[in-house]
Amino acid sequence: MKIEAKDSVYEMSAENEAAASCKPGDRVVFETKDCFSNQIRDEETLFESTDWSTINPATGPLEIEGAEIGDTLKVEVEKIEINDQGVMVAVPDMGFMDNFISESETKIIPIEAGKAIFNDKIKFDLNPMIGVIGTSPGKDEDAVPCGTPDSHGGNMDTKVITEGATLYFPVRVPGAMLAMGDLHAAMGDGEVVVTGIEIAGEVTVKVDLIKDKELSDPMVETDDAFYTIASEVSLDHAAQKASDNMFKFLNERLPLSNNELAMLMSIACDLQISQVVDPKKTVRMRVDKETLKEYDLKY
Amino acid sequence: MKIEAKDSVYEMSAENEAAASCKPGDRVVFETKDCFSNQIRDEETLFESTDWSTINPATGPLEIEGAEIGDTLKVEVEKIEINDQGVMVAVPDMGFMDNFISESETKIIPIEAGKAIFNDKIKFDLNPMIGVIGTSPGKDEDAVPCGTPDSHGGNMDTKVITEGATLYFPVRVPGAMLAMGDLHAAMGDGEVVVTGIEIAGEVTVKVDLIKDKELSDPMVETDDAFYTIASEVSLDHAAQKASDNMFKFLNERLPLSNNELAMLMSIACDLQISQVVDPKKTVRMRVDKETLKEYDLKY
Ligand SMILES: [Ca+2]
Ligand SMILES: [Ca+2]
Ligand SMILES: [Ca+2]
Ligand SMILES: [Ca+2]
Ligand SMILES: [Ca+2]
Repeated sequence: MKIEAKDSVYEMSAENEAAASCKPGDRVVFETKDCFSNQIRDEETLFESTDWSTINPATGPLEIEGAEIGDTLKVEVEKIEINDQGVMVAVPDMGFMDNFISESETKIIPIEAGKAIFNDKIKFDLNPMIGVIGTSPGKDEDAVPCGTPDSHGGNMDTKVITEGATLYFPVRVPGAMLAMGDLHAAMGDGEVVVTGIEIAGEVTVKVDLIKDKELSDPMVETDDAFYTIASEVSLDHAAQKASDNMFKFLNERLPLSNNELAMLMSIACDLQISQVVDPKKTVRMRVDKETLKEYDLKY
Repeated sequence: MKIEAKDSVYEMSAENEAAASCKPGDRVVFETKDCFSNQIRDEETLFESTDWSTINPATGPLEIEGAEIGDTLKVEVEKIEINDQGVMVAVPDMGFMDNFISESETKIIPIEAGKAIFNDKIKFDLNPMIGVIGTSPGKDEDAVPCGTPDSHGGNMDTKVITEGATLYFPVRVPGAMLAMGDLHAAMGDGEVVVTGIEIAGEVTVKVDLIKDKELSDPMVETDDAFYTIASEVSLDHAAQKASDNMFKFLNERLPLSNNELAMLMSIACDLQISQVVDPKKTVRMRVDKETLKEYDLKY
């Protein structure tokens, strides 16, 4: 099954209607526009000339049959295909480098032979990733614009959300209502200018349900690690929440006292910055699987 | 030349007298106590029973002949040798996990066969690193306790400050006055419980001067990257300062416009957390050397 990019939303909301519906275990392809709704195709087109009401579309939402409030939605990112042209912008008064930016500029980044071409001297390795992905907030919660990350996911701009990653999201409405967009061909932690290499593409995921397993904020599992993710207005609060969530995750799974677990985390876990430029900032905490292999850690 | 651990200071201050003196290009060994001044040798000794006035000693300071205000002190970390026993503590109302810690506990961590033994199931890889290292603040600046990181360095608890790293520090008093201590056998980014694996040892460094090169905050160079480091009360401010310092560092060295450089940083740089538990928090920004190899980036 494939959901086309024209079936998109600009906010994640319990009011959204499903663009498609599938069963647990199904494989679904999401075609996605870039974060500018593909409006910037050349370097003459500045960010200010785009239609702001169409920034950060997310394709979907996908209703997963049988998903109920209090379940966990499991999303395996099987494949991320990106187009052959990415775009970056520098915009005054936006992002973390705004002290140094006095006029708007657009840069087209061709994707050639598996590299992103910044100029004749700099080619970036590709790390295709999903910037915006999440489930719906609950019926009694406010809708969240797709440009904002929060406990339902959304604009987390977290570079470990890539091919091969498994994501876990809270289910807060019947059907879970998964939506995604905002692919990046590559991005640095922080995303300091306010964009990664923004690009359209297609994401293939396999969705599944873990029944009756409540989750407060998204998590990511990769071959070598688990990550808690937290988004708050300040990095300090996001870091505290990501750490507290990791403590709770590990505390349910490891036979260690609180003190021992806190000490373990001080060595086995890394607090990492995802992005510092969205309305809420995103911090993740990584725990290394290899270090804990004797405990056979699972979600 | 070797400076013994008994020659130590508890604050970095323009008032400190040199423990030893050397020439640029010299190799010097610093013997260091652990952050508890080696007072905790068994699990019956709690943090509260230690003499707080001797927490976080730094061996030194070393006067480098010819170092003048406005120079850069270059410190190559050639070797870090650690003892065979480390220590961690969990203490109520300290650190980032304090919500979960109700009573004080000490844990001894044996170092055996190149691993740190947490328990019979968990062995950590070693990553010997220097927690406290810095030069003296200027004559008109306040002395800084060795437990606090700031623009002179100090308690940065940054895990890339390890064997093979080259550090750059501002010189703010004649002689630079280098001091160091607080080795960790290993540590996770964040250092959330408030300690790494605290351990005594010896550090061999080669010191050199780069004349008339002012630096606002410490930097680290490794085989594959440069890092700016910034410490502020909030992570947000530390992240901003580390980013601004990286912009200035790269702007002096790369033939790119401000806009292009800010965009480059959004892909080639990673904002990373060093620690969140000291009186100021420490963030570093990494730039990848390989990505910029055509520009032959140097300090
Ligand atoms: Ca984004
Ligand atoms: Ca984006
Ligand atoms: Ca706390
Ligand atoms: Ca320290
Ligand atoms: Ca320490």
